[in-house]
Amino acid sequence: MSKIIGNSLPSIPWQDKPEGYKKPVWRYQNNPIIKRDAIPSSNSIFNSAVIPYKEGFAGVFRCDSRAVSMDIFAGFSEDGIRWNINEEPITFLGEDPEILKREYRYDPRVCFIEDRYYITWCNGYHGPTIGVGYTFDFKTFYQLENAFLPYNRNGVLFPRKIGGKYAMLSRPSDTGHTPFGDIFYSQSSDLEYWGHHRHVMSSFKGDDSAWQWTKIGPGPIPIETDEGWLLIYHGVINTCNGFVYRVGSAILDLEEPWKVKYRSKYYILGPEEYYECVGDVPNVVFPCAALTDKDTGRIALYYGCADTVTSLAFTTVDELIQFTKEHTL
Amino acid sequence: MSKIIGNSLPSIPWQDKPEGYKKPVWRYQNNPIIKRDAIPSSNSIFNSAVIPYKEGFAGVFRCDSRAVSMDIFAGFSEDGIRWNINEEPITFLGEDPEILKREYRYDPRVCFIEDRYYITWCNGYHGPTIGVGYTFDFKTFYQLENAFLPYNRNGVLFPRKIGGKYAMLSRPSDTGHTPFGDIFYSQSSDLEYWGHHRHVMSSFKGDDSAWQWTKIGPGPIPIETDEGWLLIYHGVINTCNGFVYRVGSAILDLEEPWKVKYRSKYYILGPEEYYECVGDVPNVVFPCAALTDKDTGRIALYYGCADTVTSLAFTTVDELIQFTKEHTL
Amino acid sequence: MSKIIGNSLPSIPWQDKPEGYKKPVWRYQNNPIIKRDAIPSSNSIFNSAVIPYKEGFAGVFRCDSRAVSMDIFAGFSEDGIRWNINEEPITFLGEDPEILKREYRYDPRVCFIEDRYYITWCNGYHGPTIGVGYTFDFKTFYQLENAFLPYNRNGVLFPRKIGGKYAMLSRPSDTGHTPFGDIFYSQSSDLEYWGHHRHVMSSFKGDDSAWQWTKIGPGPIPIETDEGWLLIYHGVINTCNGFVYRVGSAILDLEEPWKVKYRSKYYILGPEEYYECVGDVPNVVFPCAALTDKDTGRIALYYGCADTVTSLAFTTVDELIQFTKEHTL
Amino acid sequence: MSKIIGNSLPSIPWQDKPEGYKKPVWRYQNNPIIKRDAIPSSNSIFNSAVIPYKEGFAGVFRCDSRAVSMDIFAGFSEDGIRWNINEEPITFLGEDPEILKREYRYDPRVCFIEDRYYITWCNGYHGPTIGVGYTFDFKTFYQLENAFLPYNRNGVLFPRKIGGKYAMLSRPSDTGHTPFGDIFYSQSSDLEYWGHHRHVMSSFKGDDSAWQWTKIGPGPIPIETDEGWLLIYHGVINTCNGFVYRVGSAILDLEEPWKVKYRSKYYILGPEEYYECVGDVPNVVFPCAALTDKDTGRIALYYGCADTVTSLAFTTVDELIQFTKEHTL
Amino acid sequence: MSKIIGNSLPSIPWQDKPEGYKKPVWRYQNNPIIKRDAIPSSNSIFNSAVIPYKEGFAGVFRCDSRAVSMDIFAGFSEDGIRWNINEEPITFLGEDPEILKREYRYDPRVCFIEDRYYITWCNGYHGPTIGVGYTFDFKTFYQLENAFLPYNRNGVLFPRKIGGKYAMLSRPSDTGHTPFGDIFYSQSSDLEYWGHHRHVMSSFKGDDSAWQWTKIGPGPIPIETDEGWLLIYHGVINTCNGFVYRVGSAILDLEEPWKVKYRSKYYILGPEEYYECVGDVPNVVFPCAALTDKDTGRIALYYGCADTVTSLAFTTVDELIQFTKEHTL
Amino acid sequence: MSKIIGNSLPSIPWQDKPEGYKKPVWRYQNNPIIKRDAIPSSNSIFNSAVIPYKEGFAGVFRCDSRAVSMDIFAGFSEDGIRWNINEEPITFLGEDPEILKREYRYDPRVCFIEDRYYITWCNGYHGPTIGVGYTFDFKTFYQLENAFLPYNRNGVLFPRKIGGKYAMLSRPSDTGHTPFGDIFYSQSSDLEYWGHHRHVMSSFKGDDSAWQWTKIGPGPIPIETDEGWLLIYHGVINTCNGFVYRVGSAILDLEEPWKVKYRSKYYILGPEEYYECVGDVPNVVFPCAALTDKDTGRIALYYGCADTVTSLAFTTVDELIQFTKEHTL
Repeated sequence: MSKIIGNSLPSIPWQDKPEGYKKPVWRYQNNPIIKRDAIPSSNSIFNSAVIPYKEGFAGVFRCDSRAVSMDIFAGFSEDGIRWNINEEPITFLGEDPEILKREYRYDPRVCFIEDRYYITWCNGYHGPTIGVGYTFDFKTFYQLENAFLPYNRNGVLFPRKIGGKYAMLSRPSDTGHTPFGDIFYSQSSDLEYWGHHRHVMSSFKGDDSAWQWTKIGPGPIPIETDEGWLLIYHGVINTCNGFVYRVGSAILDLEEPWKVKYRSKYYILGPEEYYECVGDVPNVVFPCAALTDKDTGRIALYYGCADTVTSLAFTTVDELIQFTKEHTL
Repeated sequence: MSKIIGNSLPSIPWQDKPEGYKKPVWRYQNNPIIKRDAIPSSNSIFNSAVIPYKEGFAGVFRCDSRAVSMDIFAGFSEDGIRWNINEEPITFLGEDPEILKREYRYDPRVCFIEDRYYITWCNGYHGPTIGVGYTFDFKTFYQLENAFLPYNRNGVLFPRKIGGKYAMLSRPSDTGHTPFGDIFYSQSSDLEYWGHHRHVMSSFKGDDSAWQWTKIGPGPIPIETDEGWLLIYHGVINTCNGFVYRVGSAILDLEEPWKVKYRSKYYILGPEEYYECVGDVPNVVFPCAALTDKDTGRIALYYGCADTVTSLAFTTVDELIQFTKEHTL
Repeated sequence: MSKIIGNSLPSIPWQDKPEGYKKPVWRYQNNPIIKRDAIPSSNSIFNSAVIPYKEGFAGVFRCDSRAVSMDIFAGFSEDGIRWNINEEPITFLGEDPEILKREYRYDPRVCFIEDRYYITWCNGYHGPTIGVGYTFDFKTFYQLENAFLPYNRNGVLFPRKIGGKYAMLSRPSDTGHTPFGDIFYSQSSDLEYWGHHRHVMSSFKGDDSAWQWTKIGPGPIPIETDEGWLLIYHGVINTCNGFVYRVGSAILDLEEPWKVKYRSKYYILGPEEYYECVGDVPNVVFPCAALTDKDTGRIALYYGCADTVTSLAFTTVDELIQFTKEHTL
Repeated sequence: MSKIIGNSLPSIPWQDKPEGYKKPVWRYQNNPIIKRDAIPSSNSIFNSAVIPYKEGFAGVFRCDSRAVSMDIFAGFSEDGIRWNINEEPITFLGEDPEILKREYRYDPRVCFIEDRYYITWCNGYHGPTIGVGYTFDFKTFYQLENAFLPYNRNGVLFPRKIGGKYAMLSRPSDTGHTPFGDIFYSQSSDLEYWGHHRHVMSSFKGDDSAWQWTKIGPGPIPIETDEGWLLIYHGVINTCNGFVYRVGSAILDLEEPWKVKYRSKYYILGPEEYYECVGDVPNVVFPCAALTDKDTGRIALYYGCADTVTSLAFTTVDELIQFTKEHTL
Repeated sequence: MSKIIGNSLPSIPWQDKPEGYKKPVWRYQNNPIIKRDAIPSSNSIFNSAVIPYKEGFAGVFRCDSRAVSMDIFAGFSEDGIRWNINEEPITFLGEDPEILKREYRYDPRVCFIEDRYYITWCNGYHGPTIGVGYTFDFKTFYQLENAFLPYNRNGVLFPRKIGGKYAMLSRPSDTGHTPFGDIFYSQSSDLEYWGHHRHVMSSFKGDDSAWQWTKIGPGPIPIETDEGWLLIYHGVINTCNGFVYRVGSAILDLEEPWKVKYRSKYYILGPEEYYECVGDVPNVVFPCAALTDKDTGRIALYYGCADTVTSLAFTTVDELIQFTKEHTL
Repeated sequence: MSKIIGNSLPSIPWQDKPEGYKKPVWRYQNNPIIKRDAIPSSNSIFNSAVIPYKEGFAGVFRCDSRAVSMDIFAGFSEDGIRWNINEEPITFLGEDPEILKREYRYDPRVCFIEDRYYITWCNGYHGPTIGVGYTFDFKTFYQLENAFLPYNRNGVLFPRKIGGKYAMLSRPSDTGHTPFGDIFYSQSSDLEYWGHHRHVMSSFKGDDSAWQWTKIGPGPIPIETDEGWLLIYHGVINTCNGFVYRVGSAILDLEEPWKVKYRSKYYILGPEEYYECVGDVPNVVFPCAALTDKDTGRIALYYGCADTVTSLAFTTVDELIQFTKEHTL
């Protein structure tokens, strides 16, 4: 039995696996949990991050406006399913106006380390790069330096220091609808100066696992387990009618996370339902957050659908790790 | 209160705004009003134009055949909702066989000026350009010279002379799936020789109004109001999985319509319903005609959906002008 | 009355044409007949081939796994509608390990000639080419040499020798999402050495039949009739949001099949239903097999939908040949 | 013997054809006649137009600055070979500041009609279009409305009215390094409103005359002859290492110039010399002006080389017309 | 000492290696040996093949006309350096007019097998494929079936049967300026039916031998030696300013020529001289023929330069094989 | 009079400006100073860096081999003009084999800081990034961590710490022939962890300075002057026949070098000479090093030509700064 190294979360959203269902991840039956117009100004709400907060949950949400402007918004929930999202985007405090100036913001992640909640997101700074900020209360937010030079997307922190340093996964990119993408590991003493960059894993150019042929990128904050870091990530294949985004899993070494121990040959979630196949960008499932409960091993996975709405799916640490190990590339 | 400068049309199709609905444009509840196979030969019927005619309504419809040949057809309706479309395409009379020779025809507009109904459309003449014709009765049609050299699309006449001249908006293009497009203004004394070309507005390259990033083009015949010409137009963004066509609004100066007074930062209609998201070209709403009633300020907007069917939406001049002014770029 | 030259098949799947329905091909009312996850490992099952076998039917199915690996699987059915597909892909016996080495396999066809069932498919060998194999019992399969150099797709055998030689249609391609494609004819004495290549027909660059503008390729095994070989084929148009695959028909000369006698200006089946428009590759209908009954002239057409599921449609030889001749290009 | 319908020009620059030389056009032996830095600010001087003026010659020259800014400059010469080019670009007088505002200007032509010298050029106005101006003395210049909507290049006037109207050839384009281009004819009563657009000729897609496969465009002011308008034009082929620009000839009907009587299958001048093959854009010869002498039939052709320098070549009306007729497509 | 297995050719063109010159291949000092206008109609003469014939030499030459039409012409020479090329292209006799119809022809090779001279070339037949013909006297030419389906280029025969069958190398291609290309091996009993296709070698994607990154293709007829078949081939890299074509060498197994024994990491000839760097397609050296002398081991290599002229270079079998083995990939 | 803040270098290579020459930078009359085959294995030597060392000069040279493999080599010179380049590439010592593993290396810069010579270059590590190393004697070299994640090119150190930190300019890129590129500034305490990234300047999209439209990147180590850091950089425009690389100058704030004080509207050096226009990549001048003499203000600029050879040009600090300020954008 694989075990989560983390906290108890008895209030985690949950539905049991449907009887006879054989795949390792199953959908919440009332998906999508957040509709495209859940706040008055929004065109779509997706690719968002949630985390336990006080008695309930808090989150940072990507809400594209009806100007199709991309920004991130704070929100709160008692049960992790019904969400109240602020109608105004997050504003950050900070020292340097050059960094605070907003171009665009999207695809946030939230990670608790030591004493505060860190937010990372794709931040426009003469091209997309990784923005970094933190909050103690989801009301006041502070912005730090961008982690990297452009062009980068999907900066995902680890929930504790590794080898005495902060650690981040990311996906170097280009300026547009990037047709390539590998996952790299970087570390830092201070969250400002980053170095010691290591290649983690590449997209897979082959029929053996073609769903992740074009590009891959990290999803939720890695989940610490006794087997290693459980990484849920997205993979993309380029069909004649566009990209299809799916979800896979990998297990990274606990102390040297740039070493991949296992990596799923099969995707664990792909676009099949109407709300995943039809929307502003058809055929996208894109995971950005996971809640976990140490006691039961339950995992609740939040993912964006068709760049339009937000949904929820379930698995357990035992089921997912077993699946990843059994079907490793 | 903004006012339409035009005619009374008490028989305009209409549904009141649903209670609690907050956006400026709302859909007809029995959309789509014209199905893809409304005539025996058709693959799809969309991007079409209607106008009051005698006691009821007449229209010019884009019907792509099941050879996916593109042509325009006349049709008639008593209520503007249920349409009888001719099974044979329009044939034009005219002087010069060079001009009368049909290559392909699509995306018509209809405009009444002085004593007759003018039709403009995208006309194949060694590349797409703007065809011009007229009719008195929607039975006999006469074709004039093409307005411009190739390559152009979306030629839209103003419903009266401006500064003593006929006036037209259009969108210069290229030979294919044009990845750019701005709106220009041209004028003419005789509908044959066109000049005095003026730039009106460009697509918007920025996160502030990204739905109209890639290209924009004029939609229905501009609506004269006491605030200026109310222009409903389409805007396009290029996602990794293709173009998304949405609808916006602008207000142009009455006497110098190449001067933009207001322009909506937010789209006013985007693909959300099944019949707008799924079809031969997913994620397209494309407006080509509007009926207006001076007395109530009602506007009935006809738009193509997914290059497959035709739908109807509603607003009022007051609501739309107020929205455009409040949320101007 | 046109006649099929072939066998009786009283057990052919069948539904009568719905009353009032005017098009030459109609869908089975319980489509899709094979769901995307009909075997435990599958992401999608489509573009597959069936054939009468013993008292019932056998088939070779393209099942993409949840690794999105492409392979072909044998299956059996009593009624041609409910299928049992093997959970393991076909393995081939053969002499040369160089040829037996699997890269990827997709889009199979099955053709009975003389004493055995031949299978052709798109076979990865340093690029896509035409794999050739045979079986007597759909249990043991033998693989021959690839028919051609890369790059080729859609190799379709004729069901008898022509001029004393085996005959095959195919579509030369490139390495990717080929934006061109014509149909060619080749012949062979031994199924290993192929030559005497003849051009059959090209995609059609014109508004008169634009649905087949970008590329065309052969579909099911040609059906022998007293009018010639009835060829059902796919045609593709490139819209701004991707390729649309439709189905057309042609009649080829019986003894010199590279001579086209008639070719349908109109498509006979296009993506309209949800399961054809929504899926891993939206807007695809792709025919790979047809069952025929000499006595009634019935044709049951199997086709892939949206690269995700498999469906069934019906017509008769008389109706389809009459349609093709009436509406020939 | 073909005859020029025009003026005597005994001072035309001239060199006799080299003995034994068999092609219809021969180069001036001291090419290039204008070096890239003939004025202090210039990076390159090419694609320029000259015309008889008073006792000598005047011209309008494309001089790209060392900022690689594109503008047009007046110049004067006594012999048509040694030129004094103004160090400041042309400024235009005119009524509408919207039109007078300079974006960029390039590839001018000069045409004398009735009482003045008209200049046309590629003019930046939210994209390239055809600028129109005139002068009486090459000192004071007046700018009229742009002739067309964007996107267009190579606007070339006829030297007299045809059918009572001003007439212009041009090449509709796109916003970039246009990979297509046909020649069209347009007419106007007032040089402001243009219409009656007619297709003249297309690029030639075939091995029979592949040098003009990709695009074609008009060169110098057409030369009136007793055989028709002699049009010297450029044609382009796209090799794996870029475009090659060459020169061809055609004869258009005198009264209906959109009717092509003859068109050269062979190019008459191609890049062969060092100064034509090496420069800012390798492998370009681009003709923009021709001087003619009625009495001798001599033609002096000015052409840009490699987008860097300006050269001179010679032929006679008789030789060129005979060549065009003998080798017509 | 490596040895050529072949004939004596004491009259082979030759110059000794310049003193102090260290590379394995050296240029003829009077290059180019054939100018671009060596026949009256030609724009360029390049990528051509020669062979010993009677007391002297014969050849088949690619001469592009000044229409830039591509065709092949016979020619003769006493010394292999000064050539008389026919002014009319080759016409072929044959059985099937479908095959004899000329679309375009280019890049010929000539190979003597048993009793006659075979010519292969890139032949237009609904796309580029490999044309095959033969002659006994370079006056009367007979054309056979095309060897392959489109799309293919660079069909190069072996000078004797291998394993009892004719053998050919070729490079499957696409319809345009192909950005990929590997070398394959095929065999045939009768020169009409080809099969048993084997992959020989791929372009090399790596810094270790980047000059052959984009594509590779066979050059002259392979030279039989006691070490194996000596194959001189072209390799291409794609720079930001276009393709650069260079020349390399490989040694193939004598009886299984799809097995590569050695392959040069370094190119053996690249564009450096003016006539190789400047012309219609800059930076191309493209070898199509080699003469060899068994007694001295001398090799005279004929190659096209910049798609414009033809040149000559020298090496010896011993030097080239030694170089290839020492610097094998 | 502007002054260099630096060392005396009386032995700097030098030629006075030719009389009557009006541009700010002039070429050495015996260019190129390093030929393409200056070492036995080289295809080309270009884009290289030099620095004063002991009594003479040392350098790090990009020598592409005749495998077109890219690597860097040490070399020495007494006069800065005649160079002895090692025949073997540099090998680095270091701690982590992951970092020491060579993929490819190109476009080096050399910078003396405090007590040693730092080398930066474009380093292959799963894509191009910035390699960092140092040496004391140009014999033993030590390699540090890569400065950034891929994808980056043109890492250029400042010759002293700024604000107590090491400082570097660079140009984030993509994986191929990057069609974009801006200059950024980064800093570090330890040359391993980099942060505080600042945008310095972008390519210029406009006719006013079109030579730097497509991308720009830093050239030699910035030269400290009393006016600020004098930055010589490259700029690129994309013509229809490829990129043209030219050289410009800018002045950056001494203490906040991401602030641009002046930036040249005109290029200061562009490809004009044969050795700059013809070579493996035509039309490239690319500066990588400058020697300076405090006493005279002389600057000797080393630049690569056509990706093939290395040349030398001259200017003075006073002339260049005056030119930059007078013609600032």
